[in-house]
Amino acid sequence: MPAKAILISIGDEILYGQTLDTNAHWISGELDSLGIRVTKRITIGDTREEILSNLEEAENDADIILITGGLGPTSDDLTKPCLVEYFDTHLVRNEEMLNNVKRLFAKIGREISEVNERQSDLPANCTPILNMMGTAPGMWFERNGKVIVSMPGVPYEMKRIMKDTVLPKLASLFIQDAIYHRMIRTIGIGESMLAETIKDWEKALPPHIKLAYLPTMGSVKLRLTTSGESEATKKEVQEQIDKVLPLIEKYVYGFDDEEIEEAIGRLLSDRNYKLAIAESCTGGFLSHKITSVPGSSQWFNGAFVPYSNELKNEKLKVDGEIIRNHGAVSEPVVLALAKNVREEFKADVGVSISGIAGPGGGTEEKPVGTVWIGYSDKKKTVAKKFQFVRDRSINIAYSAVAALNMIRINLDKD
Amino acid sequence: MPAKAILISIGDEILYGQTLDTNAHWISGELDSLGIRVTKRITIGDTREEILSNLEEAENDADIILITGGLGPTSDDLTKPCLVEYFDTHLVRNEEMLNNVKRLFAKIGREISEVNERQSDLPANCTPILNMMGTAPGMWFERNGKVIVSMPGVPYEMKRIMKDTVLPKLASLFIQDAIYHRMIRTIGIGESMLAETIKDWEKALPPHIKLAYLPTMGSVKLRLTTSGESEATKKEVQEQIDKVLPLIEKYVYGFDDEEIEEAIGRLLSDRNYKLAIAESCTGGFLSHKITSVPGSSQWFNGAFVPYSNELKNEKLKVDGEIIRNHGAVSEPVVLALAKNVREEFKADVGVSISGIAGPGGGTEEKPVGTVWIGYSDKKKTVAKKFQFVRDRSINIAYSAVAALNMIRINLDKD
Repeated sequence: MPAKAILISIGDEILYGQTLDTNAHWISGELDSLGIRVTKRITIGDTREEILSNLEEAENDADIILITGGLGPTSDDLTKPCLVEYFDTHLVRNEEMLNNVKRLFAKIGREISEVNERQSDLPANCTPILNMMGTAPGMWFERNGKVIVSMPGVPYEMKRIMKDTVLPKLASLFIQDAIYHRMIRTIGIGESMLAETIKDWEKALPPHIKLAYLPTMGSVKLRLTTSGESEATKKEVQEQIDKVLPLIEKYVYGFDDEEIEEAIGRLLSDRNYKLAIAESCTGGFLSHKITSVPGSSQWFNGAFVPYSNELKNEKLKVDGEIIRNHGAVSEPVVLALAKNVREEFKADVGVSISGIAGPGGGTEEKPVGTVWIGYSDKKKTVAKKFQFVRDRSINIAYSAVAALNMIRINLDKD
Repeated sequence: MPAKAILISIGDEILYGQTLDTNAHWISGELDSLGIRVTKRITIGDTREEILSNLEEAENDADIILITGGLGPTSDDLTKPCLVEYFDTHLVRNEEMLNNVKRLFAKIGREISEVNERQSDLPANCTPILNMMGTAPGMWFERNGKVIVSMPGVPYEMKRIMKDTVLPKLASLFIQDAIYHRMIRTIGIGESMLAETIKDWEKALPPHIKLAYLPTMGSVKLRLTTSGESEATKKEVQEQIDKVLPLIEKYVYGFDDEEIEEAIGRLLSDRNYKLAIAESCTGGFLSHKITSVPGSSQWFNGAFVPYSNELKNEKLKVDGEIIRNHGAVSEPVVLALAKNVREEFKADVGVSISGIAGPGGGTEEKPVGTVWIGYSDKKKTVAKKFQFVRDRSINIAYSAVAALNMIRINLDKD
């Protein structure tokens, strides 16, 4: 049985929707890769009763409780007094922590104030954890084989404390069998169709290998989970992957952590190809996806966003007559755009998108969500029509994913 | 006493740190602006016991329980069977929901599968909520004056259900005195500096008008909240806004719901100006922000993303010698890019961005986060250097916001 952890985020600003809590998400991922199971996450406000009752409940239910937030110097931060009350202890000034705070203040040339000094008063029963990045130390408590840790809510302070101290200590205390995950990443097939396609394989999975479907926009990830990191375990999971792959091969773009835009980068750089983009209705979003990958200048020459028809015509030599006869959202236009941007931008692969993102601009013949995507390389220039049905931002996002998938499919055929 | 709400997010993928839960954050903000107090947020896995015990506890502690996630068509999604068990009821096929799913499938020209049909089997005691954007309907339960709502975890499906149905129904059931909000939107000033600037005004606010600072990337919103929607209330809040505005005028880009990219659209179309963009390190993200606004083709001609220096040189006539002498990330390059893209793309305003987004590419002289932004209109061409310090995606986002602010400031001077 893996160790169980409960995360408690404390802060009115999270509950009121003013601060997005990314701490719990990050901690979840870190514990998961250690093989510690997060069974529950709780967010509560800066309220004494809530903090005390949730601490008690969490200590009953889990082996590890990680608390973030509520350690600021002002009076609305209640985590520390609540911990003192919860453990029925008292505060003791810690000189090592105080010196660290003095050092931080000296660095920015400021006098330490009394409220900041008081941040070095810590519950007598805790092991203090040095906060290299801020004034609130972390606190490590142990009783009856359970661990309770309190950390500041500032993300970079919490992360440093986790990496330097908390994760290594938790690993040494709780980890025998690590969790082993593999991920198969698909695109171009919906969750239910995918489930239908692999249902016999899924039924035959051994019970100690768990399968999860993780759909995100336009793509579905299949996650296989088991415990233990022995070679035998890895081999067994790989055998299951090898069994299912032939059923879904044409939808699989990658494995484990690789995003579709990273997979495209890999496919292009494997071939030493450069990409160029002409995108209209997606307004730069496809180019943004491609360039969100570090190092993308290796396989990306650039993009052109011709929002006006005049620019499509002048800059990418799409014949005004074609646009007049077929409209900007049409097969001949995306064919010309893909080919011309490839040539003009001195690339090996050109991709083009033209469509009606909405909410305006739709017609009976071409309703909102009609999108043409073109692809061109040295051997061929092709186009495909898509019909999306959602709102503007969703149409833009789906179009970009469809274009990435079109690059993948055509490069694979190479 | 405001009504109390508890949010329950269900999904192993959230607990394992694979999916960042933005739903709870969004719902928190929406309930807060209605005047409903979120007292707790809980995230649990797709586990029968956890779902049942947390439902029970939440029903004891709150008036409203909003559940997201776990409604997918596959067997790892347990929310619906758990709700059936929790309410001791049974499933009934709902024809209206089924027809909606059929309509969605017909629209994309696909056959409905049996697993999707089964998504229209709903607990007998619930009021189904039509999901216009997907196949899993929402479910509204009431007992003993308390409301329990289950919604899909897909953010755009959940948001549509919330806006169309859940928020209006909750308001009519739980809100007597409507909450009245006004928002002043600022950009280019940090939260603490803003607080310092308006501290005397803040101290003098009448106690029934509450002030909140809502910082998001590169901008801080000031929210004034009071209850009641009488003309006298509105006038009183407006008077407070009129008092604070002179102190912060140069940072204010808009009010209430207007995002900075919408404000830029308004400023441009007021002047009947067209915008063109040449952006390098931001890779299309600024263009994406501009075109995320419906109707942006009215004020946006297009963008050029010259990721390679060769394209900067050839397509926008930036002298190769300038790039060689000063580097691509330099004042002369963004000045030339802004001016040339304005002329080449036949626009009235040109904006350019060139910088080092990271993680690679930094030097001692130009570390990661160094970004030059250029602005050009018919009267002037100017540039400004920014130094951001965070990671790639944050640098890209901050750069785009800084460019939008630079457009605003220069148009205001017009």
